[in-house]
Amino acid sequence: MEIKVFKDIMSANQKLAQTNRAYFKDKSIAAVNVMASPGAGKTSIILEIIKALKESMNFGVIEGDIASSIDAEKVGRLGIPVVQINTGGGCHLDANMIKLVVEDLELKENSILFIENVGNLVCPSSFDLGENIRMVIASVPEGHDKPYKYLSMFETADVIILNKSDLLPYIDFDMDYFMKGIRALNEKAPVFQVSCKTGGGLGELFEYCKGILRRSSFDLNEN
Amino acid sequence: MEIKVFKDIMSANQKLAQTNRAYFKDKSIAAVNVMASPGAGKTSIILEIIKALKESMNFGVIEGDIASSIDAEKVGRLGIPVVQINTGGGCHLDANMIKLVVEDLELKENSILFIENVGNLVCPSSFDLGENIRMVIASVPEGHDKPYKYLSMFETADVIILNKSDLLPYIDFDMDYFMKGIRALNEKAPVFQVSCKTGGGLGELFEYCKGILRRSSFDLNEN
Repeated sequence: MEIKVFKDIMSANQKLAQTNRAYFKDKSIAAVNVMASPGAGKTSIILEIIKALKESMNFGVIEGDIASSIDAEKVGRLGIPVVQINTGGGCHLDANMIKLVVEDLELKENSILFIENVGNLVCPSSFDLGENIRMVIASVPEGHDKPYKYLSMFETADVIILNKSDLLPYIDFDMDYFMKGIRALNEKAPVFQVSCKTGGGLGELFEYCKGILRRSSFDLNEN
Repeated sequence: MEIKVFKDIMSANQKLAQTNRAYFKDKSIAAVNVMASPGAGKTSIILEIIKALKESMNFGVIEGDIASSIDAEKVGRLGIPVVQINTGGGCHLDANMIKLVVEDLELKENSILFIENVGNLVCPSSFDLGENIRMVIASVPEGHDKPYKYLSMFETADVIILNKSDLLPYIDFDMDYFMKGIRALNEKAPVFQVSCKTGGGLGELFEYCKGILRRSSFDLNEN
């Protein structure tokens, strides 16, 4: 018996990503795919940005997790449109999941939509969600060798954040080695060193976020 | 055109895992599948255990990473049989990869074989490698909510290690909440709180490892 193998998963995802991209363009929404290891601080970064800028900008959030709605509840307390996707074991979000929930958010025009992916430095990087910007968050305690091991994630990032910089005094973290690893893969992504605990470095990140809508070209073939 | 979908990946993996399990039993090798997020300290824990016990016990290591041989080089410096598997993008090890490399290690009888999986709290938990023991490492900076989000990993663990306890004074980590999350999924896995940096708690982990060979029943249907 011949068994055919379905190899077209990625192009099926790509078509739906294009549908999402068209939706975002139509509403002038900048979608930011936020990717990181478990516990690197995805939710904390998103919360800090929204708290700092919500008086002057519109936001929405899609929270992706294998299980639980812990993160969506944190966002909901800020009065921001939010929806939780539980993948039920799946290790990444895909374009179809975003398509299924995004209209329910009823986002205003000119919003920034943060899509917090499942905590995973591997699989999410392969699945285009239709986003305008790929935000990758590393954290100091994960160690300085992550760009050498998780190439695709750092290679395809549009912006990279190094979180938990308050822990630098307690951890052997070679900043030059870390940056050299990033720059070998990715010459142009800005890198922000921040601490959600002390607030250090967040001001510069907020300035970057203020420019996201302006810089998003809404090119349908961007990713 | 009808496209058939190949659904039998898991059972194909399971057959090869059984082959590995039989090999381990035949040589009285206890295989330990070490799983964690990126940067939780898998390699550091393995190195500490080997350094402490290598005079009295036999070890071997299989290092899994998407790219690089950074970790295998660290193990190699201890004079321990080691092989690196680069998955080339793959987010977990599988039984076939182990089967392909394990004989080349030429492990002695009564060895402990550490298999360091790809840094990922999701996918590795679904792929039986033929191991006797599943060791899951969490780390303090990842946060106390990990057992609530990565259920399968904590549910199927035989032993759980909480690493980087030296960072507890600098991080809001609710130990009761963390333990409650683990015990809701897993009643019996011992939990060791350690710091590879200060050495705190490692003595108890070493005692546990001394008993791994004795406790491994080498039951071919264990996992």
